[in-house]
Amino acid sequence: MSNIPKIVILGAGYGGILTAQRLQKELKYNEADVTLVNRHEYHYLTTHLHMPAAGTDTIENTRISISNLIDEFKIDLVKSSVQEIRPQERKIILEDGTLSYDYLIIALGGEPESFGIPGLAEHAMSIRSINSVRLIRKHIEYQFAQYKNERNAQERINFVVGGAGFSGIEFVAELADRIPKLCKEYDVDPNFVNIYNIEAASTALPGFAPELVEYAMDVLRRKGVTFKMGVAIKECTTEGVILATGEEIKAATVVWTGGIRGNRMIEAAGFETMRGRVKVDDQLHVPGHDNVFIIGDNALMFNSEGRPYPPTAQIAMQQGVCCAQNVVASIRNQQLRNFEFSNKGTVASLGKGEGVAVVGKKLMKGWSAAQLKKVVDMRYLYTIGGITLVLKKGRFL
Amino acid sequence: MSNIPKIVILGAGYGGILTAQRLQKELKYNEADVTLVNRHEYHYLTTHLHMPAAGTDTIENTRISISNLIDEFKIDLVKSSVQEIRPQERKIILEDGTLSYDYLIIALGGEPESFGIPGLAEHAMSIRSINSVRLIRKHIEYQFAQYKNERNAQERINFVVGGAGFSGIEFVAELADRIPKLCKEYDVDPNFVNIYNIEAASTALPGFAPELVEYAMDVLRRKGVTFKMGVAIKECTTEGVILATGEEIKAATVVWTGGIRGNRMIEAAGFETMRGRVKVDDQLHVPGHDNVFIIGDNALMFNSEGRPYPPTAQIAMQQGVCCAQNVVASIRNQQLRNFEFSNKGTVASLGKGEGVAVVGKKLMKGWSAAQLKKVVDMRYLYTIGGITLVLKKGRFL
Repeated sequence: MSNIPKIVILGAGYGGILTAQRLQKELKYNEADVTLVNRHEYHYLTTHLHMPAAGTDTIENTRISISNLIDEFKIDLVKSSVQEIRPQERKIILEDGTLSYDYLIIALGGEPESFGIPGLAEHAMSIRSINSVRLIRKHIEYQFAQYKNERNAQERINFVVGGAGFSGIEFVAELADRIPKLCKEYDVDPNFVNIYNIEAASTALPGFAPELVEYAMDVLRRKGVTFKMGVAIKECTTEGVILATGEEIKAATVVWTGGIRGNRMIEAAGFETMRGRVKVDDQLHVPGHDNVFIIGDNALMFNSEGRPYPPTAQIAMQQGVCCAQNVVASIRNQQLRNFEFSNKGTVASLGKGEGVAVVGKKLMKGWSAAQLKKVVDMRYLYTIGGITLVLKKGRFL
Repeated sequence: MSNIPKIVILGAGYGGILTAQRLQKELKYNEADVTLVNRHEYHYLTTHLHMPAAGTDTIENTRISISNLIDEFKIDLVKSSVQEIRPQERKIILEDGTLSYDYLIIALGGEPESFGIPGLAEHAMSIRSINSVRLIRKHIEYQFAQYKNERNAQERINFVVGGAGFSGIEFVAELADRIPKLCKEYDVDPNFVNIYNIEAASTALPGFAPELVEYAMDVLRRKGVTFKMGVAIKECTTEGVILATGEEIKAATVVWTGGIRGNRMIEAAGFETMRGRVKVDDQLHVPGHDNVFIIGDNALMFNSEGRPYPPTAQIAMQQGVCCAQNVVASIRNQQLRNFEFSNKGTVASLGKGEGVAVVGKKLMKGWSAAQLKKVVDMRYLYTIGGITLVLKKGRFL
C-alpha cells in the first residue's frame, strides 16, 4: 500500500476536467494518486447541448472522450456512477465498488429544479446530458412522424419550453431554426407548428440589459416563437401544461429549463445545503471539511453585492483551476488561495448568425455576438485539448 | 362542357403510374380527359420501403414527385384522399370535392391484414407508406434514446417483426444491419438487443425453394435474428406480443408484415370481394362494370393452377400497361386484350450484399442475388422516369 495521498474527483464536467488537468500538470511524480470518476467515458459541452437537443448539431460534436483529455498514466479514470458520498469514512460508494480518498473534489452536475410544480419531473424533458438531449431530439422527430400518421393531431406539433433563462432561450432559438427543416422532411405545413416559451418572471434572460432582452425576443418572435412572460406553469400533464391563468396548452413535447438545483447526493452526504448546494468557503472547502472541495453546480458563492453567482461553465472552470492549486497546496502544507471570480462576459446564442452578449460594459448583438459565442466555445476546446481538439471538434463552430 | 370521355385513375402506386404513363402516350390530343388522384404529391417505391423503415436508406431515395413522372399538360393531377367510390353515380367522393368519370381505374393500395389478432391494428406498426415507415424509423430511434434515460429497460431494445414473408424478411434483414450502427450512436451494447421474427407458417418466404429459405434464414441468424417459426401471435399489447404457446415477448416495437387485404373502399363501393379484393375478369374489369378496372393490391387473379397471384409490384405494373390499353380500346370501340402475367422472377434482399432470387428455374443467392435486386430497382426507375431518374434516385443502388 502506498502512503501517498489519494485524490478523488467526482464528475468530469467543466470543473472536474479543469481540476484533473491542472493536478496532472502541477503534481510531481508519486506526489499523489489522482482518480477521476465519471458516469460516462466522455466529457460533454454543456453550453452546447441546446444544439443537439434541437437537432441543429450532432451529439459527436458535443462530446469528447475523456481519455483524449487526460493522461491515463497520471490519472486513473473510473467509469462508474456515484451512489453515495460518506465524508466521515472518507469513502465514495460507486454502483460497482467503493473508493477511499484523502482529498475529495465534488464536481458533480446539478439536477433540474422543478420548484414542486406537479407533473414536471414526470412529463417534461430536460437539457442536462448527452442522453437527455438525444431523447429530446428523437422525441421531437417522433412527434412529426406521428403527426403524419394520426390525421394531424395538433398537440404533436405544439412545443412548450418552460423557462426563458439562458438554456431556455438558446434552446428555443435552435428549435425555431430546426422547425422549417423538420417540416420539409416530414411534409408538414410550418404554419401549423407552434413554439411556446413560458416564463414565470416578467422577462426573458434575467440579468441582461433590457435592450438586449428586447432584441433577443424580437429575433425569436420573427422566427415564430410565442412568448408567455410573467405566467407560471401550474401543472404539467401527459397532455401538455396548465398555466397559472388556467389556460391549457396541449403539447406532446414539454422541455423544462427553469432551473438547476444541487445534486441530491450532496444533501445525502450530510452537508448543509441551500437548494441542494453548499455555501463553500473562500478556498472552495465544504465548511468544516478541509479535505473536501466543491466546485461547479453544487457550490454556492456570493458576489460582493451578496447575490449568488449562477452556475455557469465559466465559474466552474475558474473554480477547477483554483481548486487544483488548493489541493496541491494542502498536500504541500502551503498557503491556500481565495477564489475570486473574474467575469469574462456572457453570451447567449439566438440560433444561426444571431446572439446577444455583454462583455464588461459593452453590449453586443446580432452577428458579432454569434461570432463571440463561437470564439468562447473554441477557446474552451483549446484550453482543454489544445489545437488538436479545436481542429477535431471545431467543425461545428 | 366537353363531351370527350373522362378517365379517372385512383392511386399513383406501381399500377396507377404505369396506367397514367401509358394513357399519356397512347391517347391522341382531345381523345380523353385523364385525372390521376393521389393522397400525396409523390409516388413511392413500395419494394424499397423496408430500407427507410429500418433507417438504412433515406425517405428521399424512396419517393419521386409525381410531377416528374407525368406530363401535367396531358394529365390532371389531383392531390386528395379518396373517401368513397360510387359506381352507380359514376362519382368519386374526395375529402375535398367530387369527381365524375366515364372510365375508372382503381389502383389504390391495400391495407394491412391483421387476421383478427387482438391489439395488432392498435399497437403494431406496418410498412405501407412513406408516413408509416418514417414512423417506424423514428420509433426505433426513440426507443434507443429512451433506453439510455430509463436505466436500461430491456423492452426498449427488443424488436418484434410479425410475418416472415417478403416484407418481413427484407425488413428484418435491414433492421439487423442497422442495429450495430444504432448501438454505436446511442452507446448501447449490441449484445443486449434482440430481434424476433415470428411467423405462424412453418417456414419463412413461402413459395421459395427450401434451399433458398434455409440460406436466407442462416444469413439472418448470423446477423442476430431469432426466428420463431410455426408460432402464431395470439395478441399484441402495449407491452409486446403474446404467442399462441403462451410465451410473452416484451417489446416496445412491433412491426406487422403478416399480410395485405383489399382496401375497405372497394367493399364499400358495393363490389363483391374476397378479403377486400375483387376477382376481376381477364380484361381487368370489375365483373358487371365494363367501365371500371381494378389493378394492383385490390385485384384478385388466379394462375393456371387456380392459386391467387400475390400482390406484387411486378404484377401491378403489368396490369397497369394492360389496363391502359384496354381503356383506350374501350374508347375506340376496339377489341380488349386479356391480361396474362409474365413472371420475370422474384428476388428478396437480405441486407447489405446478400439476397436470394428465383429467375425462371434458376436459383440465386448471396451477392449475385443482391445485385439482381438492384438491377430490378434500377430497371423500374428507368421504366417510369428514364435515365434522368436512374441518375437521380439510383444513388442508393
